[in-house]
This record gives sequence, structure tokens and C-alpha cells, in this order.
Amino acid sequence: MIELDGKVVSQKIREEIKEEIEHIKEKTGKVPGLTVIIVGEDPASKIYVRSKDKMANALGVNSRVLQFDETVSQEKLIAAIRELNEDENVDGVLVQTPLPKKFNTWQVLDTLNPGKDVDRFHPVNLGMVLLNRTEIFPCTPAGILKILDFYDIDVTGMAAVVIGRSFIVGKPIASMLTNRHATVTLCHSQTRNLPAVVKRADLVIAAIGRPGFITADMVKQGAILVDVGINRLDKAATVSKYCTESQQKKFAKKGYGICGDIHKDAYEKSAYYTPVPGGVGLMTVAMLLHNTLQLFKAGRKKE
Amino acid sequence: MIELDGKVVSQKIREEIKEEIEHIKEKTGKVPGLTVIIVGEDPASKIYVRSKDKMANALGVNSRVLQFDETVSQEKLIAAIRELNEDENVDGVLVQTPLPKKFNTWQVLDTLNPGKDVDRFHPVNLGMVLLNRTEIFPCTPAGILKILDFYDIDVTGMAAVVIGRSFIVGKPIASMLTNRHATVTLCHSQTRNLPAVVKRADLVIAAIGRPGFITADMVKQGAILVDVGINRLDKAATVSKYCTESQQKKFAKKGYGICGDIHKDAYEKSAYYTPVPGGVGLMTVAMLLHNTLQLFKAGRKKE
Repeated sequence: MIELDGKVVSQKIREEIKEEIEHIKEKTGKVPGLTVIIVGEDPASKIYVRSKDKMANALGVNSRVLQFDETVSQEKLIAAIRELNEDENVDGVLVQTPLPKKFNTWQVLDTLNPGKDVDRFHPVNLGMVLLNRTEIFPCTPAGILKILDFYDIDVTGMAAVVIGRSFIVGKPIASMLTNRHATVTLCHSQTRNLPAVVKRADLVIAAIGRPGFITADMVKQGAILVDVGINRLDKAATVSKYCTESQQKKFAKKGYGICGDIHKDAYEKSAYYTPVPGGVGLMTVAMLLHNTLQLFKAGRKKE
Repeated sequence: MIELDGKVVSQKIREEIKEEIEHIKEKTGKVPGLTVIIVGEDPASKIYVRSKDKMANALGVNSRVLQFDETVSQEKLIAAIRELNEDENVDGVLVQTPLPKKFNTWQVLDTLNPGKDVDRFHPVNLGMVLLNRTEIFPCTPAGILKILDFYDIDVTGMAAVVIGRSFIVGKPIASMLTNRHATVTLCHSQTRNLPAVVKRADLVIAAIGRPGFITADMVKQGAILVDVGINRLDKAATVSKYCTESQQKKFAKKGYGICGDIHKDAYEKSAYYTPVPGGVGLMTVAMLLHNTLQLFKAGRKKE
């Protein structure tokens, strides 16, 4: 079993982005611009947005956070997005979800210019993924392909099983793997006899958000395991059941440990696996900045 | 084995459309408008376009065909589409494909206002299908769901195998079946051990365009077989191998017979099957007119 190391791959991508932005800046004086919109005070979202912003600026992206109070009206939020659509210094815009319940999330997100949609969840961008007409992908699925590419894993002809049908991960990665010539089965809560389906997979993508849900007995010997789940556990019993040793140590120190959707005992049966943490999760932010740079370049082409 | 009769289902849909249009016309004086654009002299395309046009007018749709010579420039074709985008009497536009090779097909198709895209191949419309945010689907996949609905077949939890990954049939029907809670495996030319994959399917959708490609031995006893293929055969040996008796008689009279992608001998093992001809093929044009009516109604809502 070989660990697919998200630290190594995401660092390489970040370095490449940084270098390319420096080069662009030298030549043109311009840098890519990213604006992240956050509404309300959800602590997890705020931490996540701050880490995106910090990394973006560290790589030379002109990043900023637009924080709105939860009391902001939908009209005002939409007006702010429209303004960003017109702002030539902004190449990528991200609206942090979930939005507070009073908002019509799709109405807000659909306002975004698809050419600035750095998350790639706008229907036209997801349609382009389905049609195999774009190389700019939603961040987490994009990160999965980058890890596979880094380790020279060609999915052509593989039986791939994707567990979880969200539009954020499951559906786009299913389309992307089909376009790369894998035979994809997309599973979800209504799938019958999931263990038998997973057992046939050469490549397993787990994106459901349930600790250790894919157990060792479900996995074929020699499969490739890609774990998108990031589950935070804070009870000793579950931590010892689901977390790796290093996360158990973290629990002892900090009172919580992280685990994925694939049980750690399954790693031994795999040819390759992505750890949690340290796997796909690290790729998502890197690919957000990768996308920001791609949108910047695409925008400049049009000028 | 029960035949899923496309004649019965498509006729019912056509009658419903006709009634609804009559009703709308009485109340408002308006009827849905459809324009089909055809470029060049491909005989099969011309026959197909003429039959669409004839059926549309028979149901009360204000249908017309815009025929362009192959020598028309791409700019002129795009200008014609832009004009239709603005024409308030036109609710649906269809550009008959394939276009002659000199055209950039996507550039032409992307010009079409997604709200008038009756084929639903515009990326924003396919994205809405993936996102499960629309009830207006590409015509052939829409026809498949209508047949299943007519016979009260609920796909929830079923193992569905789709063979063929075109954006016209395979990819959208895969998304649509996932959204209806089937577990979908999307197969294609690079799928390994296709017979074993098909053998596991409760529901088989064949959309590859190869006569009798899915043979009886590949099919599970009691499966539901949906055949999208329409293959024209004109040699006695292949006709007797692949065509049903009635098509063999047609061959004797007219020199050709039609068969599907699923071998006729597989029908016996099935719980339900769609015949060819007389199955899904009849649904496609009916759903085109269904979509025209839906777009008309959606457009009027906005007024």
C-alpha cells in the first residue's frame, strides 16, 4: 500500500501557482484577484474562509474577504455579486456555503458570472464538465484528479465506484472519471447491497461524511482508495475505533481527532490510499487557487 | 415479458399536448412556436426534420423549418439564431445536427438562448439536469422516463446500467436515473468485461448504435430492457440475425429492416422491454413537442 500524499501534491501545486503568478506579475504588473463572500458568523466557515484567504495572499493572489452580517438582504447580497461580476480586478468569486436559511442559495449563486465562478458549481460550468468541454473543475474533484495524475494512475478501463451523489463532489467526479474512460458507478443512500458494489471497484471515491463507513471487508485487495470525508470525532470510543494513531495522539492533546469515510483498516488491502487528514482535503484549497489562476488567464485571453 | 409500447405512450403524450395547446389557444389566442434549423442536404436529416415539422403542426404548434444552404457562413447561421432568440413568437429552437464539417458546432449551439433550447444540450441546461434543478430534459432521455412512468416502473434502488456515454442520451439519462435514486453504472467502449456488468443490471439502457450488441446471455432474468438504438440493416444475413419477424417481412418488401442495440432474443429473459421500432424512438419527437410546450409555458410565466 502506497500513501497518496496530499501534502506533497498540494505543496507542488501551490509552488507552481506562486511561481506562475510571480512571472505574470513581472511581465504584466497584474495578479489574479479572488473575493470570498461570507454571510453570518458560522465559526467553521469563518475559519475555512480565513485559511483560504491567507493561503491565497501567500501565493501572490490579490485575495480579500467580503463579510456580510446575517441581517443582509438577499437583494443586497445579489447586488454585491453583480458588482464583482463587473470588477475587472476580480477574476474569481466564491460564495461560502451554506448560506443562512433565509436565502435562496441558488438564486444567489446563479447571479455569479460563470466566468468568475471559481467553485464551478454554476449550472453552465457543471454542464461543461459533463460535456467534457472544460479543464476547469470543481475544487475537490479537481484535487482528486491531480493526486491521481501525480502518482501516474491512469483510470482508463477501471471500475470506479463513487459513494455520495452531491453536486460538490460525487456527481462531478463521476462525470470526470467517465470522461477519463473509467466505468463509473455512482452510489448513494438508496444503493442496494453497497458492500458488493464497492467490492468490485478498482477505484473507490468515498464522499459521504460518515466516519469509517467503508470498511476493510468491503474493499477489494489492491484497490485504490480515495477518501473525501473529513469527520471530526471527540469521543474516546469512536476516536480509537476510527482514527489513525497520530490522530489518537491529537485527540489526547486537543480533545478531537479527524477521520475519513474509509476505515483505516482498509488501507492495508489497498494498492494506494489517500490518508485523512493529509489527503484530498489539502487539495481543495490548492485547487481553488489553481482555478483562480486559470480564470485569470482565461479572462486575459479575451482582452 | 411485457412490451413497453412506445406507440401507446407517445400517442397519449401527443394527445395531451394537442389538448393543452387547444385550451391555451382558446384562452389566450397564442400557440407555442418551434423553429427547426437545418443546414445542407443530408437526406436522413431532411426526412427527420420534415417529420418533426409535420407532427408539430398537427398538434397545433406553430412550427417551421429554416433551411440553409451548405454554403451559408457560420456568421450568418449565428445571426439567424440570435434573431430567433429575440423573436417572441418562437419558444423553441432546434439546430439539426450533425452540421456540415466546416462549422464549429458548439459555437453555433452555444449561441442559442438556453430558455429556447428545446433539445436541452446547452451546457447550462445539462448542468441543471445534473443538479436535479429542472424537469425539462433532453428528448430521448425524457422519453425513456415517460415510458417507465407510464408502466409504473419505479427505478429507486435499482442497479441501472447505461451503455453509451453520449451527451445526447447516455450522460443525461445516467444523471436523471441517479436523481431518481437508481444506482447507475455508465459503460462505454473502454469498459472492461461488459457482459458481467450488464448481467448485474435490473435496468439496461442501450444507446450505442450497434445492431444486437447486447445479447441474451448478457442479460439477467427479469431485467428491464430499454433500447435506444435504431439500426437500419439491408443485408439478408444480418436482417435474419438481428431483426424481429415483422422487420424481416419489411425487409422482404422494402429492402431494409430496423433493429435495436439489444438482441431480440434477450426480450424473452426480460420483465419488460422496449421494441425497435415502436419503443423509445417514437418518444423522441413526442418529447420534443412536449419540451416546446414546456418552454412556451415557462416563457409566459415570466411575462
